[in-house]
Amino acid sequence: MPTRWPNRVRVVEVGPRDGLQNEAGDVPTEAKIRFISLLAATGLRDIEATSFVSLRAVPRLADASAVVSALPAPPGPRYWALVPNLKGLERALAVGVRHIAVFTGATDSFTRHNIGMTVEESLAGFVPVVERARAYGVSVRGYISVCFGCPYEGAVAPASVHAVARRLLDLGCDELSIGDTIGIAVPTQIEPVVNPLLDLAGPERVALHFHDTYGAALANVLAAMELGVTTFDAAAGGLGGCPYAPGASGNLATEDLLHLLHGMGIETGVSLEGVAAASRYILGILGRSSASKVLQAMSAR
Amino acid sequence: MPTRWPNRVRVVEVGPRDGLQNEAGDVPTEAKIRFISLLAATGLRDIEATSFVSLRAVPRLADASAVVSALPAPPGPRYWALVPNLKGLERALAVGVRHIAVFTGATDSFTRHNIGMTVEESLAGFVPVVERARAYGVSVRGYISVCFGCPYEGAVAPASVHAVARRLLDLGCDELSIGDTIGIAVPTQIEPVVNPLLDLAGPERVALHFHDTYGAALANVLAAMELGVTTFDAAAGGLGGCPYAPGASGNLATEDLLHLLHGMGIETGVSLEGVAAASRYILGILGRSSASKVLQAMSAR
Repeated sequence: MPTRWPNRVRVVEVGPRDGLQNEAGDVPTEAKIRFISLLAATGLRDIEATSFVSLRAVPRLADASAVVSALPAPPGPRYWALVPNLKGLERALAVGVRHIAVFTGATDSFTRHNIGMTVEESLAGFVPVVERARAYGVSVRGYISVCFGCPYEGAVAPASVHAVARRLLDLGCDELSIGDTIGIAVPTQIEPVVNPLLDLAGPERVALHFHDTYGAALANVLAAMELGVTTFDAAAGGLGGCPYAPGASGNLATEDLLHLLHGMGIETGVSLEGVAAASRYILGILGRSSASKVLQAMSAR
Repeated sequence: MPTRWPNRVRVVEVGPRDGLQNEAGDVPTEAKIRFISLLAATGLRDIEATSFVSLRAVPRLADASAVVSALPAPPGPRYWALVPNLKGLERALAVGVRHIAVFTGATDSFTRHNIGMTVEESLAGFVPVVERARAYGVSVRGYISVCFGCPYEGAVAPASVHAVARRLLDLGCDELSIGDTIGIAVPTQIEPVVNPLLDLAGPERVALHFHDTYGAALANVLAAMELGVTTFDAAAGGLGGCPYAPGASGNLATEDLLHLLHGMGIETGVSLEGVAAASRYILGILGRSSASKVLQAMSAR
């Protein structure tokens, strides 16, 4: 095996939050808990479980506290929760969340549409959140969206991504997740975005978050691994869709990622069959089929 | 752009033959001709148009002569036709075919199930076919199936592929198409199969033919390009399915391949919009949706 690929990869499962938040159907709290519990039994070490956003803004996430409170106690995966502000952080801390994520983007147009503020405003808002989280020993993940292309601004300069990344690291983020929110990245784009980030933060602190809108997610994973990236976000069953292209594929499916990695002899510690079972359960609740080619092929056998 | 990727790639469109042959629905001759004509207008330089197999064995291909006779005269793409034996070759030559393909596999189990003979028997049968074709100045493409895994034998030794490749080259084949018939290849498998072939035949004479059953086709294309491969087979709309996993994805979709290559700044000379239009036409005739993520995303916009 060529040494340009790693021996082990860490998979961050984002289906329960990023995935479900972008699905059309409502999911009962009990089903969310069951979905996460099924995922927790697969060997996944990191699961993004929910989001403590305003109850008024996103009513379907009003059960964030109930979901977190029902999750199996440690030892188990690290459960991550998205936290937009201090109020959200307080709610998260109150139910014992130990791993939070903050969310911004590489362009003002995107963050304005998405969270109603400029990138700068969002970063300013994170200052007290990250400070307080760190005071409690809580780890912080910083998401940067639209790092490879923006639905409003088109091309995104890698320097914009690096500027936001530097700010998030300065704030005290432990890890960055670099998102291709509209699934438009191609392998030639990975190096200019990723290499300076690896220099800045080190490979242990840089995750890539690909969407499979144009089927290129795994090719991008390959290109990123060749540069030294060893952490990838993915969503069970490819949950999530693409709000900018209804009907198109969403997040890279965890099954497709695991099938590729395991086939290449790269360890993840995660059971593909287990993730597929969790996906089948939640897809049954949503009443829809999956865009994951691996899940389709497994079901066809 | 890193120099490890080529500036230009040749795309061999196999939808009209490999694709349609493996679809469930029957397609009227007129629709096949229209489909190929739409593809011929996209800039594609190589289109596999039909197969001159026994009329009794595959009744739906009984219109091979009618299809070829109706195709636009040169200048235009090279139209390839699959030819299993001397009788098929005679029929092909009679309607002016100038580019033929012969078809075998890397394992005896597969070729026995697929064409009713061992690999050795199939090669022996090709001797007079290739000899006669070359006497007429007709170019010959040699397909080798199941080069990365066999539905009957499991793992396939790269040496088996190389042995068959050497025989096909010795027979006088101008080009080899190395098939991942069940879509099971991963990037680590490409180098051991492909590097000796490039040494043997040169990059101008080696095409790779991936299926997207497990969503890894484009990652494999990337790995192959990094080794110097510059010719890839693909089928418009991802036509073809997988006979070993009904409901799973089939051939790598031409649209997905073009989107990746063009995004990477790699020229093909082929219009993605044009191929998508041809796919929409034939999918309408077949009455089914496409497994191509690019086509899905284009339709969603």
